[in-house]
Amino acid sequence: MRPSDRVDGARLLARLMDLARFGAREDGGVDRQALTAGEILARAELVRWGRELGLRPYTDAAANLFLRLDGAEPSLPPILTGSHIDSQPTGGKFDGAYGVIAALETVQAIRDAGLQPRRSIEVVAWTNEEGSRFSPGMTGSDLFTGTRQLTIIESDADAAGVRLGDALAGVLGADVDIPHRPFQFEVAAFVEAHIEQGPLLERAGIPVGVVTGIQGTRRYRVRVHGEPAHAGTADRAERKDALMAAVRMIAAIDTAASSPADTKLTVGLFEIKPNAPSVVPADALFSIDLRHPDNAVVDRLDTEIRKIVERERGPCTVELKQIQHSPSLTFDSAVRATIARCAQVLGFPHQDIHSAAGHDARQLHYVCPTGMIFVPCRDGISHNPAEWSEPDDLTAGTRVLADTVWTLASEA
Amino acid sequence: MRPSDRVDGARLLARLMDLARFGAREDGGVDRQALTAGEILARAELVRWGRELGLRPYTDAAANLFLRLDGAEPSLPPILTGSHIDSQPTGGKFDGAYGVIAALETVQAIRDAGLQPRRSIEVVAWTNEEGSRFSPGMTGSDLFTGTRQLTIIESDADAAGVRLGDALAGVLGADVDIPHRPFQFEVAAFVEAHIEQGPLLERAGIPVGVVTGIQGTRRYRVRVHGEPAHAGTADRAERKDALMAAVRMIAAIDTAASSPADTKLTVGLFEIKPNAPSVVPADALFSIDLRHPDNAVVDRLDTEIRKIVERERGPCTVELKQIQHSPSLTFDSAVRATIARCAQVLGFPHQDIHSAAGHDARQLHYVCPTGMIFVPCRDGISHNPAEWSEPDDLTAGTRVLADTVWTLASEA
Repeated sequence: MRPSDRVDGARLLARLMDLARFGAREDGGVDRQALTAGEILARAELVRWGRELGLRPYTDAAANLFLRLDGAEPSLPPILTGSHIDSQPTGGKFDGAYGVIAALETVQAIRDAGLQPRRSIEVVAWTNEEGSRFSPGMTGSDLFTGTRQLTIIESDADAAGVRLGDALAGVLGADVDIPHRPFQFEVAAFVEAHIEQGPLLERAGIPVGVVTGIQGTRRYRVRVHGEPAHAGTADRAERKDALMAAVRMIAAIDTAASSPADTKLTVGLFEIKPNAPSVVPADALFSIDLRHPDNAVVDRLDTEIRKIVERERGPCTVELKQIQHSPSLTFDSAVRATIARCAQVLGFPHQDIHSAAGHDARQLHYVCPTGMIFVPCRDGISHNPAEWSEPDDLTAGTRVLADTVWTLASEA
Repeated sequence: MRPSDRVDGARLLARLMDLARFGAREDGGVDRQALTAGEILARAELVRWGRELGLRPYTDAAANLFLRLDGAEPSLPPILTGSHIDSQPTGGKFDGAYGVIAALETVQAIRDAGLQPRRSIEVVAWTNEEGSRFSPGMTGSDLFTGTRQLTIIESDADAAGVRLGDALAGVLGADVDIPHRPFQFEVAAFVEAHIEQGPLLERAGIPVGVVTGIQGTRRYRVRVHGEPAHAGTADRAERKDALMAAVRMIAAIDTAASSPADTKLTVGLFEIKPNAPSVVPADALFSIDLRHPDNAVVDRLDTEIRKIVERERGPCTVELKQIQHSPSLTFDSAVRATIARCAQVLGFPHQDIHSAAGHDARQLHYVCPTGMIFVPCRDGISHNPAEWSEPDDLTAGTRVLADTVWTLASEA
């Protein structure tokens, strides 16, 4: 009897659809941004499901949620498996949620198979992976792994001015009987299942991706300061138009990033003040998200971006702040081999695949052996209400996850 | 005894500074957008000042405020004089407010001189000239003159979703004993005093500008529709990036409008959705404000703008909507001559000047003889907290206004 024998695809899908009710959008998507009411209710539902399975819930100062199945040797560092349940404002039902529900199904399958692992296994939901409300994301895994410190970021505010520290206090204050644990407890391994968010597996007709690593990312905020002026009277030569300066910068950066063709450049956030049709904009703020698997490409564009913002600012002033720099990384070879072997034994076609997106697994990679399992998603679409994965693929990925986690939890 | 003899510059300035308390910004500017609490309180203060002077207040369905001094022949159409008291979010103390306070000072000077005009004189404050909250502006003068219909625009909403009709109902409901009048009652003439919002009078050292007309304006809203996608995974070739399309459009339109050099092009409003750093923008909305004294220039750029948005949309779709088209106009020659003659008699240097900005006088021009008086403002700065005019210039403009209004009210 292997845990994968007891993975129930229908139950997995039912839980995914159940979770998607929290923060449901009218267009079928999900808007369940971190620490909002929708996410708070979804987190409480996870606790309820975990308790029904006999798992003990824990949390920490980042509101990360852990659901623990005790192993035969409970003093050993546990295996963690999971992802996140927060979404983008225009998110779908699978990004993040799949990894958490697949982890819960994994633990249930192990229990239903009448097996007890040597090491304890914990289902985890990391807080604010997406970073759409409190930016940047990966808050829970960053704090857990010590990449960032709560005392430094607790004053960060969302667009409405709510502080991260207050939002966390609100969520933690509503918890009933969930003990707290410190950050950075020892972890034996972390495995995260996720939809690919790209088209490669679907095109290849392969249900399981063994993730080799994560491409490098740099994220910036650019603030342009000009001066407000009257749209009808201020002469072009006398304006300090923050919007026009920002437009010139973005157009030039887009051109610079057009080669190599697999460079990912996104300006996803753009705000101006006073944002009134008859006033020359005094301030502009925009984000830059730059990614490429080759660190040298990202580093070259970093240099170009810094030159461009100075060159195009005109009479305005500009501040460029890099808020994240995550080099490309390669996951632990033993974990990758275990995933591939479990897929092989189950007879699922599988292939190595590089992750273009960032994941909580990035942070865990620096503190314990870490791996990821990808499943195909339709047309590669993600961060979009149309996000979809076929139930057979979701089940295949979960079966591989179950055997992988069981194997890791059984090893010496 | 002429009314200008009794214009009190200190009282004028004191009332301007008093009014600037409503919606005061910490930086010394004013944020008193239409139908907000700040404007409601400022309007109530005007009513109080008017009643102290024995003027009778009236309003209408647009919440325009009229303060009436009865003439010897009260059945004759009145002379209207005033401007507006709403401001831009980053506005100053003078734009609009000066014309209303100068009108109040005019009426007080006439009364203090012991004079009674033949025609009634009404101080007027038109609602929502600026259009920063409910766009486009000129709402009060548009509705009064029949340019727009309340039944058509009452459902227009501000950024927070508040309907114009509800905002008006809130203001009118709080009025105490202010009778309503219909729109489009007959008006004998309208005179509006205003700061220049440009640098010409100050540079020439001339305190009084006789406004010859208003330059042509076209205003647009452009909506670009793309598709949300994941910043890390969606390939450049597969994206429908609404922000990048909008940036290309604005850069091209800016280039097209760079000649002739006195073309005024402003993109003052720019919003994207979902506005999240890790999501390729699905939608972009921006405003275009285009002005030039020569109608042919505005018309040529109108054609170019329509071509550019189609050419630069890439895989996105685009809707361009013209929300305003106001051709250049020339004010009534008799009113202009009266203003110039009054300035001449008072010994104030004066010159003809074209208005680059739109004003409520534009709408009144189509229903009655209309004119405007400009006074210099420092460095031509307006729509900016730093807006400033010298007290001597404010007084000079008001003295010319007082004699002009008196002359018009005395004519057959």
